[in-house]
Amino acid sequence: MKLATHDNGTADGILVVVSADGSRYLGAAPVAATLQAALDNWATAEPALRALSERLAAGEGQAAQGLNFAAPLPRAWQWLDGSAFRSHGELMETLFGTEPPPPGRPLMYQGLSHQFLSATADVPVPREEDGIDFEGEFGVITDHVPMGVTPAEALAHIKLLVQINDWSLRALAPVEMKTGFGWVQAKPACSVAPFAVTPDALGDAWRDGRIHLPLRVDWNGALFGEAVGGVMEFGFHDLVAHAASTRSLCAGTIIGSGTVSNSNFREIGSSCIAERRGIEMLDEGTARTDYMRFGDTVRMEARQADGSLLFGAIDQQVIKG
Amino acid sequence: MKLATHDNGTADGILVVVSADGSRYLGAAPVAATLQAALDNWATAEPALRALSERLAAGEGQAAQGLNFAAPLPRAWQWLDGSAFRSHGELMETLFGTEPPPPGRPLMYQGLSHQFLSATADVPVPREEDGIDFEGEFGVITDHVPMGVTPAEALAHIKLLVQINDWSLRALAPVEMKTGFGWVQAKPACSVAPFAVTPDALGDAWRDGRIHLPLRVDWNGALFGEAVGGVMEFGFHDLVAHAASTRSLCAGTIIGSGTVSNSNFREIGSSCIAERRGIEMLDEGTARTDYMRFGDTVRMEARQADGSLLFGAIDQQVIKG
Repeated sequence: MKLATHDNGTADGILVVVSADGSRYLGAAPVAATLQAALDNWATAEPALRALSERLAAGEGQAAQGLNFAAPLPRAWQWLDGSAFRSHGELMETLFGTEPPPPGRPLMYQGLSHQFLSATADVPVPREEDGIDFEGEFGVITDHVPMGVTPAEALAHIKLLVQINDWSLRALAPVEMKTGFGWVQAKPACSVAPFAVTPDALGDAWRDGRIHLPLRVDWNGALFGEAVGGVMEFGFHDLVAHAASTRSLCAGTIIGSGTVSNSNFREIGSSCIAERRGIEMLDEGTARTDYMRFGDTVRMEARQADGSLLFGAIDQQVIKG
Repeated sequence: MKLATHDNGTADGILVVVSADGSRYLGAAPVAATLQAALDNWATAEPALRALSERLAAGEGQAAQGLNFAAPLPRAWQWLDGSAFRSHGELMETLFGTEPPPPGRPLMYQGLSHQFLSATADVPVPREEDGIDFEGEFGVITDHVPMGVTPAEALAHIKLLVQINDWSLRALAPVEMKTGFGWVQAKPACSVAPFAVTPDALGDAWRDGRIHLPLRVDWNGALFGEAVGGVMEFGFHDLVAHAASTRSLCAGTIIGSGTVSNSNFREIGSSCIAERRGIEMLDEGTARTDYMRFGDTVRMEARQADGSLLFGAIDQQVIKG
């Protein structure tokens, strides 16, 4: 099942169910006005939404071209982003001189959640010299998660999967990391691809709490990376359990994978510029690749085995904010 | 003007206006159902709420004893906590071996905002060995703040003042700080005193973007500290501008001062246990004071010159969660 939010001018938009190929939709108003409302009441909302999804599979619905897709959750009460790809973590530790986390302990920070940009919205950033970078990620959305769940229990709380661009301002990141307080200025609003999908929509590509699909990233129209999501050191269920260790998670909590990264990044490329710069520094002693300029574009997409776009595509331009 | 939220069983409660002494109230339903709704529309809501406040001043209203106070915002889209008292920061840097922030740059992290506990709610914590600590703080609530505001401009966006207990799990804090990602597990939900007040309610005690009042903290019924809020290195307007440097802030953003602390803490005491332990380590080579146990209580209150409780009181017990 594929869900999306139509931007009707309100803060949370309105929930729609989308056909598997993303071409048609049915409004979900009889079930829930918004995706947050559906997640607040998922046990009863899910079967009713699946009934709409089956009607779409049978050929019903209107052309989705008329929709103006917002992020699936245009705002959320909680956004926690992991850094679950070890090849990325190791490079960043080399680059920033930070220590690796203790074994068995995922990295995670709490980020801005009052605004998630749509997949096509211009991205306002105040200064080019802040080091504008994209970060291609996968993510999950949970229902209510009680404090203290085990990873095995956490798996059942993962209700939807999403694709995220975690915008980062790299010049500000090390200054904030050094304090130990984490990032505020270095992490403006993220962007999210239009479709949030239930795990079953991935078939065998969803297993071990991981999304086993490549995330293709194009920067200014040129292929930049195509790392696969399945090699996370920690699965999303581990990240959910880590987050819920000392707090309960509200329905609609979004948890990110961190930058998708594979250890053969020299061959397949990267999902963020900082990683490529790190590789250049290791291999050549200096970073040749600059960060983004105003007017630059980035596109991110995850295709299934049949070539279809699972989450839709992120395709955005950076502008002076 | 004093505002509060009555817990009627819904996630956001209902907004009420409270008399200056906290004894009587009028429902705010004709103006705004919730405090978040009032903040979303503050320019029109504020004068209408002030009219209710004037009716309370004239003797109208019902006894507030019948109310069940929630936190003023039982959940918020954004909670950013500073650490703006240098005497506290210096001690913590000594204790944790972290570097001081660059001059002119406030410390700030983004915390859990999907739940703020009421001032009298039991506080569920999973393990005593996590190092349960209170942190007495002041805070502000803003309306919508555009990206890039100056501190002078930010001052006008501070609409309400609050009093906060930022619960902390000290054994987890250094592990998370070392990663540079900031705190997730070390910072469960905060508690907030019942009354959110407009800055004018403080008279001369609100100046330079600071709250010039003592915050009295009692642990298990014994005075623990009574530091004053006016000596913040950065005013709340500086903290708001820092937060809004690369993002806009949504209406209802809560920004905290960090632990209220004064450099004469050996005489007047502290607003958190970690600070007292730091002083003991400096003075005696070892920390004698243990963190909280299940069943321990903490009370926090700020009295005005006439002896009245400005924000009401936080008075809570820690329980096994």
